[in-house]
Amino acid sequence: MKIGFIGLGNMGAPMALNLLKAGHALNVFDLSEAAVRALVEAGAQAAGSPKAAASDVECVITMLPAAAHVRSVLSADDGVLAGIARGVPIIDSSTIDPVSVKACAELAAQHGNPFVDAPVSGGTGGAAAGTLTFMVGGSASAYEQVKPVLLAMGKNIVHCGDTGTGQVAKICNNLVLGISMAGVAEAMALGEALGIDTKVLGGIINTSTGRCWSSDTYNPMPGVIDTAPAARGYSGGFGTDLMLKDLGLATDAARGARQPVYLGALAQQLYQTMSTNGAGRLDFSAVIKLYRREGAADAASDKGDKGDKGGAR
Amino acid sequence: MKIGFIGLGNMGAPMALNLLKAGHALNVFDLSEAAVRALVEAGAQAAGSPKAAASDVECVITMLPAAAHVRSVLSADDGVLAGIARGVPIIDSSTIDPVSVKACAELAAQHGNPFVDAPVSGGTGGAAAGTLTFMVGGSASAYEQVKPVLLAMGKNIVHCGDTGTGQVAKICNNLVLGISMAGVAEAMALGEALGIDTKVLGGIINTSTGRCWSSDTYNPMPGVIDTAPAARGYSGGFGTDLMLKDLGLATDAARGARQPVYLGALAQQLYQTMSTNGAGRLDFSAVIKLYRREGAADAASDKGDKGDKGGAR
Amino acid sequence: MKIGFIGLGNMGAPMALNLLKAGHALNVFDLSEAAVRALVEAGAQAAGSPKAAASDVECVITMLPAAAHVRSVLSADDGVLAGIARGVPIIDSSTIDPVSVKACAELAAQHGNPFVDAPVSGGTGGAAAGTLTFMVGGSASAYEQVKPVLLAMGKNIVHCGDTGTGQVAKICNNLVLGISMAGVAEAMALGEALGIDTKVLGGIINTSTGRCWSSDTYNPMPGVIDTAPAARGYSGGFGTDLMLKDLGLATDAARGARQPVYLGALAQQLYQTMSTNGAGRLDFSAVIKLYRREGAADAASDKGDKGDKGGAR
Amino acid sequence: MKIGFIGLGNMGAPMALNLLKAGHALNVFDLSEAAVRALVEAGAQAAGSPKAAASDVECVITMLPAAAHVRSVLSADDGVLAGIARGVPIIDSSTIDPVSVKACAELAAQHGNPFVDAPVSGGTGGAAAGTLTFMVGGSASAYEQVKPVLLAMGKNIVHCGDTGTGQVAKICNNLVLGISMAGVAEAMALGEALGIDTKVLGGIINTSTGRCWSSDTYNPMPGVIDTAPAARGYSGGFGTDLMLKDLGLATDAARGARQPVYLGALAQQLYQTMSTNGAGRLDFSAVIKLYRREGAADAASDKGDKGDKGGAR
Repeated sequence: MKIGFIGLGNMGAPMALNLLKAGHALNVFDLSEAAVRALVEAGAQAAGSPKAAASDVECVITMLPAAAHVRSVLSADDGVLAGIARGVPIIDSSTIDPVSVKACAELAAQHGNPFVDAPVSGGTGGAAAGTLTFMVGGSASAYEQVKPVLLAMGKNIVHCGDTGTGQVAKICNNLVLGISMAGVAEAMALGEALGIDTKVLGGIINTSTGRCWSSDTYNPMPGVIDTAPAARGYSGGFGTDLMLKDLGLATDAARGARQPVYLGALAQQLYQTMSTNGAGRLDFSAVIKLYRREGAADAASDKGDKGDKGGAR
Repeated sequence: MKIGFIGLGNMGAPMALNLLKAGHALNVFDLSEAAVRALVEAGAQAAGSPKAAASDVECVITMLPAAAHVRSVLSADDGVLAGIARGVPIIDSSTIDPVSVKACAELAAQHGNPFVDAPVSGGTGGAAAGTLTFMVGGSASAYEQVKPVLLAMGKNIVHCGDTGTGQVAKICNNLVLGISMAGVAEAMALGEALGIDTKVLGGIINTSTGRCWSSDTYNPMPGVIDTAPAARGYSGGFGTDLMLKDLGLATDAARGARQPVYLGALAQQLYQTMSTNGAGRLDFSAVIKLYRREGAADAASDKGDKGDKGGAR
Repeated sequence: MKIGFIGLGNMGAPMALNLLKAGHALNVFDLSEAAVRALVEAGAQAAGSPKAAASDVECVITMLPAAAHVRSVLSADDGVLAGIARGVPIIDSSTIDPVSVKACAELAAQHGNPFVDAPVSGGTGGAAAGTLTFMVGGSASAYEQVKPVLLAMGKNIVHCGDTGTGQVAKICNNLVLGISMAGVAEAMALGEALGIDTKVLGGIINTSTGRCWSSDTYNPMPGVIDTAPAARGYSGGFGTDLMLKDLGLATDAARGARQPVYLGALAQQLYQTMSTNGAGRLDFSAVIKLYRREGAADAASDKGDKGDKGGAR
Repeated sequence: MKIGFIGLGNMGAPMALNLLKAGHALNVFDLSEAAVRALVEAGAQAAGSPKAAASDVECVITMLPAAAHVRSVLSADDGVLAGIARGVPIIDSSTIDPVSVKACAELAAQHGNPFVDAPVSGGTGGAAAGTLTFMVGGSASAYEQVKPVLLAMGKNIVHCGDTGTGQVAKICNNLVLGISMAGVAEAMALGEALGIDTKVLGGIINTSTGRCWSSDTYNPMPGVIDTAPAARGYSGGFGTDLMLKDLGLATDAARGARQPVYLGALAQQLYQTMSTNGAGRLDFSAVIKLYRREGAADAASDKGDKGDKGGAR
């Protein structure tokens, strides 16, 4: 299959590589020449614009930082819709708000193209390994059309419902995640202050009604889970600023729907405080620093300069 | 073994019955004559006071509503310490604050009695089935002394550390629980408002980073988990007022330790609102009513045992 | 002076009338023909487009619902910048985000026009009476240029600093307002539940360290201040949905600046809950219904159908 | 008049001195010999116990740190009720919870003594100057009986209603205060981050709908109000730990009344964080450090060691 791929960042590049490995031909576009060059060396063809990348292909995939980029890549004069043939499906794997998804889908529909939102979870690790989860919003027929392409990049392809529901699923999951991580941080730090061995406490929570991914897989207290970012100074993992972006999408979507999100809005402020303190690039589980006595000092001194290395989202 | 058992309520009565079944002899005391009579019919011997219940036994167990009851049952003129022989261990399975535990343990120590805090999880179902989890705080030797007795009432007996750490473990676990349930409620209601099928959403969260007991076992949205209280109008289960009690213990302990509990304090207010609205006896997952549009109407029709006259919100 | 005025809504119309009364000549534009007709009857001249309204005038004023309208009215093919002469100042009195203000000011500057943001407080009452407060952001020279025009519509004209700071002042003031109103609601309802006469309580707060506009002028508890919206079923006043809009601007601006707003984000959720419950058009002091026992019922029955009639902002 | 005075701390000592100045005779008791000696030098008579202090007097005043002290001072074997004559009124000026007040009043009533709760505002400054405000709960006749005594120590004597309502008034006022201070801190820090001159911003808020004591008298941003603690490194004033105590009383009373206090509970966590960071003795307006970029570092380094020097409460 010949595929146009636009957006070769930390996530997009390994996803595109997996498409090449699966035997697909790729037209790639990115503003970074280095990013394009790396894909060309792996066998892709460079395109001079989103329009060129979308011309003469059977599928287009976009993986971009924010909704404004997706809209512009679609509808600019040298954008995807200027080059794509009628009927060719467009997959947007960016994480953006559901309202923008609907606007993009409408633009595509006017042009005769099916559009699915297919945000991912699994981080850069999952992108490299081809084990991402794709949450797909769109019609049943569009879903069937794009599923084979997605299977070259991920192992869980879930049809969530109509256009936009892929984003809704991702936003709602990460809302729970952001809350439960801060909740676990609060409880582990309280336990520590009250004198219980935190490894014992983690063990009890993980086999009781408090168990959750934030505790049993990614526990924010150092010494509880050996493979969690807490065991390596909160480097790598899912960056605080990325969690902030997702909680921003959640609280914005909630505002649009006139839906209260008490805990989500508060959790957002906690991660915001971390970011204000210069810890935005640390893994989001570093939020526990707000609760531990040495926290204030650490948050200032541990400023992550390595950024988000992937890991789960 | 001959055991004194004080406090035959919803939890204490089935726990005492399991001790009888295991072949222990019981001296029982409760302010309710009916509660005592039921145990006597099952083979226990009635005692006229905590002092009498604690006389001539090898172990004393208390299961009471609040710290004030435990203190008074121990130290009143006709209390446990007035009757118990030196060296006989006292097990308090009530859920109370760690500071009171230490005060009780000191009273017992002055009298020559080991004291362990051993709060439980598993609810009345686990009490009846003998499958409770006991979180035990106390010295290693006291733990070994009481473990055989606890095994007649539960299947998981965890030594958490020194005196008080059993309560710390329970409080911290329930802090995570109260937060994650409200967080899941918030996210499920947001997803519903944004148009995703809630069963699909539940499935995604339960296999992703948002997974937690509050979602995969006890999901508050009707239609997601067939065996959850949400499937039966939020009857049965773990009452909102009990969650309020435990969050109160958590925020009080945090205050004493000068430890912030942002999300816990906010979750407490959400359950408080449910209680204010008359829904205190509904399962705590009914907190989702605060987030759903038809909530007001439902809360009025799903009345708990007594109340819920006010409608949610 | 000849002035172009675009946006003749609840606020814009009385502001434009005051300019006429002060002897200015007006070119007016609005999408609503009825709104234009009313101004024409008062002596204004109708313009067929923003471009036409801005042609051949000495000053242009815009008063529009949101940033998207302001941007479009400025830069559309038949927009203000297509008609206005170089050097003529543009006053935007809409309440919008500071980032959009800067973008608009840059567009205007490219065209050779000074641009000031001049959001107002005082509501429709103040607009009618010509007693509005204008918070003005822009250069000192632009401020001096527009001040005489603003004095025909308001009595307090405050220069806040550079472009955008007018909006910052308004957003920050309304952030305090939204928080303090909900705080007063919380305290008054608590006092009521604890059995103190609420009028006595209001009197104490108003002469003590808790005193604030939300208590001494606009107290949300019925029976405390005779002239407050609480005394007339929360009709009129500053609508909950308008407070929500302003808190949204505040939390968005905070997010952009990586600045935590704990209480603001929580207050936003409280007003959001009111809006979800159908009370978005009631005065924002109706938030006390969330705290009073009969609240749920009232929020449903008192649905405001009159909307924002002005009053303070 | 001969008066028994028990509790000669930072507040009690200057209050007692004012009674002496007004010509009353005093029997004083305190656990600190130094505190007693200072009063004796000023003309008071030392008593060896609360019982002795309450013997042969026409009025008893208690000024103690917490409810437990008040209960014990009343009912111990050598307590007030063991020495006081029937009919002599007891004034408790401590800040404690309303439930404890009722219990104390009942004890006093059984003994034939009127009891009023009369907590104060005005701080150590007001105590020294004799300008305190007394919020009095009790029967009309008891109020009339004690008013002349209170007038020797304060200038505003307000009858709030029945027993306990004095405490309710104080708790509710300080609930508003704690929230509005944190709200002003949030808004001033946001304005600073968004680039407005904070003195200009303060001026706008103070003449607009955001005005409040926390902004116009005690603004937490340095440079806005010259006489506020912010102008002297947050020393003196009303300590963070005292605000924490009062918010604790408010949230506890709310819990007992099944009344939500969303913003109060969150504000409590913010002051708690300050206390955790070692800033509990700074004035409570130092909470703005949580919002300003240099905050984390400052909170650690500025540890106040002078404590509460008075100022407003």
